[in-house]
Amino acid sequence: MQLDAVPTPALVLDRNILMRNVAAMSTRMNDHGVALRPHLKTSKSAEVARLATSGHSGAITVSTLAEAAYFLDKGFTDITYAVGFVPSKAPQAIALMARGARLTLVTDNLTVTQAMAEIEVDTVFTMLVEIDCGDKRAGVLADGPELLDIARTIHDSKNMTLAGVMTHAGHSYGAPDIAGVKAIAEDERLAVVRAAERLREAGLPCPVVSAGSTPTAMLAECFNGLTEMRPGVYMFLDLTQLSHGICQRGDLALSVLASVIGHNRHAGHILLDAGALALSKDIGANAVWPETGYGDVCDLTMRPLEGLHVAQVSQEHGIVPVSNEAVYDQLPVGSKVRVAPNHACITAAAYPSYNVVEGARVVDEWDRVNGW
Amino acid sequence: MQLDAVPTPALVLDRNILMRNVAAMSTRMNDHGVALRPHLKTSKSAEVARLATSGHSGAITVSTLAEAAYFLDKGFTDITYAVGFVPSKAPQAIALMARGARLTLVTDNLTVTQAMAEIEVDTVFTMLVEIDCGDKRAGVLADGPELLDIARTIHDSKNMTLAGVMTHAGHSYGAPDIAGVKAIAEDERLAVVRAAERLREAGLPCPVVSAGSTPTAMLAECFNGLTEMRPGVYMFLDLTQLSHGICQRGDLALSVLASVIGHNRHAGHILLDAGALALSKDIGANAVWPETGYGDVCDLTMRPLEGLHVAQVSQEHGIVPVSNEAVYDQLPVGSKVRVAPNHACITAAAYPSYNVVEGARVVDEWDRVNGW
Repeated sequence: MQLDAVPTPALVLDRNILMRNVAAMSTRMNDHGVALRPHLKTSKSAEVARLATSGHSGAITVSTLAEAAYFLDKGFTDITYAVGFVPSKAPQAIALMARGARLTLVTDNLTVTQAMAEIEVDTVFTMLVEIDCGDKRAGVLADGPELLDIARTIHDSKNMTLAGVMTHAGHSYGAPDIAGVKAIAEDERLAVVRAAERLREAGLPCPVVSAGSTPTAMLAECFNGLTEMRPGVYMFLDLTQLSHGICQRGDLALSVLASVIGHNRHAGHILLDAGALALSKDIGANAVWPETGYGDVCDLTMRPLEGLHVAQVSQEHGIVPVSNEAVYDQLPVGSKVRVAPNHACITAAAYPSYNVVEGARVVDEWDRVNGW
Repeated sequence: MQLDAVPTPALVLDRNILMRNVAAMSTRMNDHGVALRPHLKTSKSAEVARLATSGHSGAITVSTLAEAAYFLDKGFTDITYAVGFVPSKAPQAIALMARGARLTLVTDNLTVTQAMAEIEVDTVFTMLVEIDCGDKRAGVLADGPELLDIARTIHDSKNMTLAGVMTHAGHSYGAPDIAGVKAIAEDERLAVVRAAERLREAGLPCPVVSAGSTPTAMLAECFNGLTEMRPGVYMFLDLTQLSHGICQRGDLALSVLASVIGHNRHAGHILLDAGALALSKDIGANAVWPETGYGDVCDLTMRPLEGLHVAQVSQEHGIVPVSNEAVYDQLPVGSKVRVAPNHACITAAAYPSYNVVEGARVVDEWDRVNGW
């Protein structure tokens, strides 16, 4: 099928760009001698996971237990669930382990590890301690007292094994420039390597020293002491990454196919059938490029249509202001465009599958797992 | 099952509040002698649709053809698809009509109607002309020249029938106060009634004169000339509506159940497992209440926890700043909260189903239709 025959709105994934993005990260991690454990929260797709893990161990990272179950069904067994675990989720985790998952869980909380130590199970939970490397989302400080308390509770328990430490430099998304990302990458590395040293000095095991966000994985200059990286959005990239200089426009693998469904000339805009649900309400790129709105309007080859952005969204409508009357002729009602989204992870989550394209041709459909 | 045993994040719908909201609108429309054609873009649920149409004709409004197909399967046949139609979607519409849907389509574009008149079909498309009543999203002006051109093209074609006119006062969401909503409601009514008069004066049929947003349906003082209203979010309501004075806090039927998954004391916040996907990135209420962020944190009975809001989200993390240390004891890691979302329609779209509760007890699970 040709892309322009696909009912809209639809999620479009460019296979050649995806393969190029995936190969670049694979090569980079191999060159630096760091294991690649790609984060599949962006793609939530087994087909993408196979490409991203090609030439690597098959280890993956997930953001939900629904992803863990899906990827396990697809043959991926070495799975790190990279969101702080709580004991109420133990039944789901135990069920996955019983089905063959080698699941690694993450914690930054002593109460959680103490409660988990009391769970009567036939199995052993593999645990990483999360370190806050400056992102200020989750994690204990590498030099704080909690690290050793948590690690020792895990190590001394009957039903947990201490795998090591992990961190995520989410604040790299907000770095003002490339030098800023590189500085954050080094902070990320130093924090988790320091935490690992403290565990080892205390006589505790720390085989895994895990870091990674897409900006830091792509730009870090030193990986000493790290054993693995967990980037995710590098596979698809998006306007947020582009606006921060992390990639080039030709690296954007994901887009939304939309139809022009209206010309509101008296209000000065065209309408797309891609609104808040089809694009998401993420406006990440606007921090750098405030004109971006909810996405850049492109032609069917992903060439940006100058000055055309989705400035407003309601649930199923995207509003694209028009200052040049010629646009109404260029984009008649019924014509189709592709919209480059701000944030690939959030946009993709509205869709059950990808229309996989090579050029203008749809060559495959790949499923996704959504929800929790 | 008790609500606090449901795996998180999860979508929660309070049946008693829903039934109260639905009954209030039903009574109001009956009192004013206007047909109720509820918009199901919010709930996307047949169970909710049955309640919302109870005592009415069963007519409904949808925002996607996927919704139309789902509701048709569930026995709803009189369906208005209230997003500007384009001929490329004709195969989907024809398939629905062949399966028994009495589908009404919407247009504001002469080119579309001219193209539709050329489609060789065995059926007749029922068309409404969309009027822009001041929302400046879609629609032709009630007094503009396009209205009659479009209406006549429909009426004169072999495969379309002119059902009338419709409008949507989406700008009522942004009204500064109740008086502002009432003024917009009257503008909405006058615009579509004026358009209907023009059609009739031109000798064209106009049996349907359709309007409606939740704020205008709830607050309009005059419905003269209107035949039906199409409100949607009134069934669930949300912080956007609450912040604009459209409802009371006790009217919020929808919430997200979340677990506290971390205490980041050095950064001064608790973490929830409800982030950008579980809550959406809609921040509608912030226009009035800038402290709202991505939602109000409430206890399991939906009592707001003072000063606690989801200030930041990443994909699966919600960050709730804490200024009072006692909150860490009040909400230990592993405890559960409910988050009132900004915009029910957008938040609900991340979930395949509702956990339907009465008080603290889950009494049912209702499915939803997502996607397109």
